[in-house]
Amino acid sequence: MRLYKKINQIKKSIQKYKRERKIIGFVPTMGYLHKGHLSLIKIARKKADILVVSIFVNPTQFGPGEDFSRYPRNMERDLGLLEKEDVDMVFYPAIKEMYSEGFETFVEVKELSRVMCGKSRPDHFRGVTTVVLKLFNIVEPDFAVFGKKDFQQAVIIKRMVKDLNLPIRIFTGPIIREPDGLAMSSRNTYLNQTERKNATVLFKSLKWAKNAYNNGVIDSKKIIQKMKKMIKNSGGQIDYVVAVDKNSLKPVRTLKKGTLIAVAVYFGKTRLIDNILL
Amino acid sequence: MRLYKKINQIKKSIQKYKRERKIIGFVPTMGYLHKGHLSLIKIARKKADILVVSIFVNPTQFGPGEDFSRYPRNMERDLGLLEKEDVDMVFYPAIKEMYSEGFETFVEVKELSRVMCGKSRPDHFRGVTTVVLKLFNIVEPDFAVFGKKDFQQAVIIKRMVKDLNLPIRIFTGPIIREPDGLAMSSRNTYLNQTERKNATVLFKSLKWAKNAYNNGVIDSKKIIQKMKKMIKNSGGQIDYVVAVDKNSLKPVRTLKKGTLIAVAVYFGKTRLIDNILL
Repeated sequence: MRLYKKINQIKKSIQKYKRERKIIGFVPTMGYLHKGHLSLIKIARKKADILVVSIFVNPTQFGPGEDFSRYPRNMERDLGLLEKEDVDMVFYPAIKEMYSEGFETFVEVKELSRVMCGKSRPDHFRGVTTVVLKLFNIVEPDFAVFGKKDFQQAVIIKRMVKDLNLPIRIFTGPIIREPDGLAMSSRNTYLNQTERKNATVLFKSLKWAKNAYNNGVIDSKKIIQKMKKMIKNSGGQIDYVVAVDKNSLKPVRTLKKGTLIAVAVYFGKTRLIDNILL
Repeated sequence: MRLYKKINQIKKSIQKYKRERKIIGFVPTMGYLHKGHLSLIKIARKKADILVVSIFVNPTQFGPGEDFSRYPRNMERDLGLLEKEDVDMVFYPAIKEMYSEGFETFVEVKELSRVMCGKSRPDHFRGVTTVVLKLFNIVEPDFAVFGKKDFQQAVIIKRMVKDLNLPIRIFTGPIIREPDGLAMSSRNTYLNQTERKNATVLFKSLKWAKNAYNNGVIDSKKIIQKMKKMIKNSGGQIDYVVAVDKNSLKPVRTLKKGTLIAVAVYFGKTRLIDNILL
């Protein structure tokens, strides 16, 4: 496993592999890896000749007052985990390496970035698409893998790839959960014991919704109302609970196959997201 | 010379050349080719194994009420000229091929796009950077050539390439002028006889400015004032006359080597631009 901090250096290695026609797979991360990340890496490992993982806590996707500075980091542990997953190249640039003086170019997927998480985090997805595009241009992967926990992010990345004609395939991996159902997230470490316990309501409410749908309830309003009640009763402060089309992310009145139910909820100061596909 | 209207088809051919490690050169144009375009193509021809030229009048870089619909087009003549220049591949997609349903991704170079032409054409450069990035991703050139007449555009493209880590070199070619000094532009065809004659004041005023600078005048205010007078006296309606740093495009008070003097002026309804480097 080779480590790269400099863009020029990893580009050089990538160029060599490109000339040898290796299939390059890529999993971008913000580090503090958990089983969710590792599941994406395992998916990529199977398809790639050369597997590249990036670790970069990207400042441009955090809003003012968000958790950029306290976002958990543990490079040593991460590198150990990546080594075990047989990763070939790790790219972990400094902020200055990615955003050099005078940086001012941003990529934006307009409509899809405004809804759901985009409402309460207005510049978040602009930061995500910009850094992902930069990473794509540096790593030049044949494919990249994103997690379904950040469902909106994956939809936006796919849209960007299509709209900008990027020669890259996007795959998504399933949500990985703790034994009690909480979706794995680096941000779970922020939760105190009570919050951690309360947070299990997210997946419970999503499972309840899917179950209700399977039993014939198709009125999204009803489902959302009940979910909100469940979440509030467990101490969650709701950012959103929505039922949307899984491609357009537009709200649907009537649930059907392919409807995404997604939630963003604060437990204390920690904002968690989760979702389920009908 | 091979012609391509479909993205998938040109991508396929490009992939073949990439595998053969050909150096791919690219000159994007909006067609209605003149000697300015041809000079860029000649520059690219010398450096490229495979020379790709695109012809696409890009709707997203025209503002409402601008000249998108009446922008001059003559594909047959263009193809004849490109054939003579020994171009290998011509890409001339339909609008729908470039902007398919649901398109909503835009790239913006924030600060540099706000000044000069960006002031009177607020979404213009966003359209330019977006389509150029798309074309770059389709053609995957090793280098691309842009004209210095659109100086601000070239600065913005270079910034985008740097900020997004695109593996593409950007070259610029000099302004090509009519015998009387008017910078070549497809828009010159809009001018009536009087306007055409009046428009020669642009280069005259720029030459005067350079001459004044060479004779020791370094106060940009003085130079700009006098230029504005010259242009108005010749029937031009000024959009801007500026003296700026050639990299940052920020106004300078004191002229020096590397200062760019640039003008945008209406003659009748036709907006022309020109510039000179000190």
